[in-house]
Amino acid sequence: MSSIQESTSKVIARTKTDWNIPASIVSRRTINPIRDVVFKMKVTPNPEKEEISLALGDPTLYGNLNVAENCIDAVITQLKSHKANGYLPAVGAESARIALAKKFSTKEAPLTPRDIVVASGASDALGLAIGALCNEGQNILLPRPGFSLYQTISESKGIECRYYNLLPDRNWEIDLDHLASLIDDNTACLLINNPSNPCGSNFTRQHLECILTLCEIYKLPVISDEIYEDMVFGDNIFYPLANLSETVPILKISGLAKRYLVPGWRVGWIFIHDRNNLLNEIRDGLASLSNLILGANSLIQSAIPDIIMNTPQSFYDATNRFLEENAKLSASFLKKISGLHVISPQGAMYMMIGINVGEFKDIKNDVEFSEKLVQEESVLCLPGKSFHYPNYVRIVITAPVEKLKEAYQRINEFCVRHHV
Amino acid sequence: MSSIQESTSKVIARTKTDWNIPASIVSRRTINPIRDVVFKMKVTPNPEKEEISLALGDPTLYGNLNVAENCIDAVITQLKSHKANGYLPAVGAESARIALAKKFSTKEAPLTPRDIVVASGASDALGLAIGALCNEGQNILLPRPGFSLYQTISESKGIECRYYNLLPDRNWEIDLDHLASLIDDNTACLLINNPSNPCGSNFTRQHLECILTLCEIYKLPVISDEIYEDMVFGDNIFYPLANLSETVPILKISGLAKRYLVPGWRVGWIFIHDRNNLLNEIRDGLASLSNLILGANSLIQSAIPDIIMNTPQSFYDATNRFLEENAKLSASFLKKISGLHVISPQGAMYMMIGINVGEFKDIKNDVEFSEKLVQEESVLCLPGKSFHYPNYVRIVITAPVEKLKEAYQRINEFCVRHHV
Repeated sequence: MSSIQESTSKVIARTKTDWNIPASIVSRRTINPIRDVVFKMKVTPNPEKEEISLALGDPTLYGNLNVAENCIDAVITQLKSHKANGYLPAVGAESARIALAKKFSTKEAPLTPRDIVVASGASDALGLAIGALCNEGQNILLPRPGFSLYQTISESKGIECRYYNLLPDRNWEIDLDHLASLIDDNTACLLINNPSNPCGSNFTRQHLECILTLCEIYKLPVISDEIYEDMVFGDNIFYPLANLSETVPILKISGLAKRYLVPGWRVGWIFIHDRNNLLNEIRDGLASLSNLILGANSLIQSAIPDIIMNTPQSFYDATNRFLEENAKLSASFLKKISGLHVISPQGAMYMMIGINVGEFKDIKNDVEFSEKLVQEESVLCLPGKSFHYPNYVRIVITAPVEKLKEAYQRINEFCVRHHV
Repeated sequence: MSSIQESTSKVIARTKTDWNIPASIVSRRTINPIRDVVFKMKVTPNPEKEEISLALGDPTLYGNLNVAENCIDAVITQLKSHKANGYLPAVGAESARIALAKKFSTKEAPLTPRDIVVASGASDALGLAIGALCNEGQNILLPRPGFSLYQTISESKGIECRYYNLLPDRNWEIDLDHLASLIDDNTACLLINNPSNPCGSNFTRQHLECILTLCEIYKLPVISDEIYEDMVFGDNIFYPLANLSETVPILKISGLAKRYLVPGWRVGWIFIHDRNNLLNEIRDGLASLSNLILGANSLIQSAIPDIIMNTPQSFYDATNRFLEENAKLSASFLKKISGLHVISPQGAMYMMIGINVGEFKDIKNDVEFSEKLVQEESVLCLPGKSFHYPNYVRIVITAPVEKLKEAYQRINEFCVRHHV
């Protein structure tokens, strides 16, 4: 102890005399806009009515959508093997990367295990991709409306978010002129999300080709968040962006969360599509950054080959059929309600509903619409403000049909009551 | 397409005309010193001799140390429930935080679920803690020798690493005078690791109290990495740092990895010990940062109550007994070898062996020692350089006894051959 006291008198470099421990700048600029908007809402549901949440993008919420049994068995096999409890390479288990490369390689966009980084959920994969491509002070192009985590990650890293408009009346295609007008030398990359959360849209091949042309012209690498890949309905076809370009470098983001109905398992990945060796530094950067948290759970990673190779097509088909039926039902119900503007979804698990605020006598905006809907009808949906898109609300269409019908019935009564 | 071309001519802000995609500054400064040192080693094992790795801090490597069966059953129960596949709160499952608070609360250092953040492994927990406490340009005090991830995380965030010396001849206690000499107004926090990787040391109560006195004098919050808590042998007693102070704010890091022999499961946590409300901002900061990757696997998180409450004491005891026996055996074998300086471990799963380089005719340093040992004897251990501590090597003592004996026999022959 005496040596401490002694050294105290010697050191003059620390003048701090009281405890004052501010949170870091980075943590203070790490904002979750959904939490921000929702926390500020005055939300006390009507105690007379059972709560129905159409707010959370979690398909497991109601228990009606379940992971396939073979996936559960695959993880149990790993548990019982006693061989999947140890550390894996930071970029992911080799067996998982081999299987992913095999499953997702296409003639147009081949993949090797070296092109794959497994991450702790698509969220972590997005963080790695944005972190490897963008510097503090640079800007990133994000969709509006768009998934709020893009902003959370980017602003956390001091990257400026520039929002390009999606066009509701063109099935939420990108306003390419607006997008182009945002680009400057400080633009590190373009992020697209297809199929889209919150829009439930799916881009046509032609639209994706236009996006790629623009990227080619401006030399913009793309982060393509395709976590809802293949979750499309009707005549819609999902095109992986990388299949449509031989030149534009693409980091494709996906994972198990939505396709396999296991968001809590926290396993996502990045595919590095780079046929002209333009992303060599980024590849190293991703590997370096992956050392920070050492990737996803080893049990699930070890089960990936089994999960992605042996899940029957009927499982994927059943999910899509369910989503399609709910999408149709939702659109047909909601279209009949005065004051709402409905855009039918083409994929994913969401739809955006426009609120014609001028037609309501006592509802000024989407936040007020959502607030009153909770207070009066105990139906929860997210105001568009959470996605930087006022006067819309986002609805998640994964609830059981009876819940949806009940919710829409209440929304109808609510709108009738408040309509001018 | 015409609209793209048109907009191209309008936009003058982008002058970039070729693909040039550098990795971000952050990714370039995210260095794993172990990988760096090991990659540069010329390591081709002797093909005549079976490889024995004493390099990797993964107790599951040889299959002799296994997670308790009740932990496997706990996860299988969650899998079969179909109720643990969804998103959990970013700070962790409430059930897990309740159980952790109950299990780890002490009279001296009480915990509520609000004081706990569950993270994707202790690595992620460390990243959150360092990220909430420190700004770019500030400095953090790290042990030398010390676990390299502290450096990786800190430098990734632009935080200056200042290394305080541990004293090998005082069972790796901190040189408190040296520590104090490093502190200035830009010092954001002190990080200690007890029991220690790579030292295998365990601080006495008195030493921990001296550290806390110093923190009190200099108003230094502490990140206390206690991932090896309770893994001590012989007469050694492990003291959680937070039990010994009512004033110093402490973020304690721990997790399932080492105590439950499941490093690949990636579940760690932070305990916020803050009886005087000095960490209110940090608490918010941790919650904000936890939104970035949304925490650990939901199956394991949901199994935490079961795992931590129902694992029999005999399991922990068996692990410690095994480690103690291996520690004794390692020390007694290696102490007889000329040219080595052995410090007997008191806890964790490691020991540091000094290389008296002056006594070897053709070995200049620890890296050369490790290289030649691989080439000639196919025994792998990590050079101290990976821990900023030259002329030592780290040995992991979790291999089966027969493997250890074989390895030490070969190290003996190796040292005899190279000794002057």
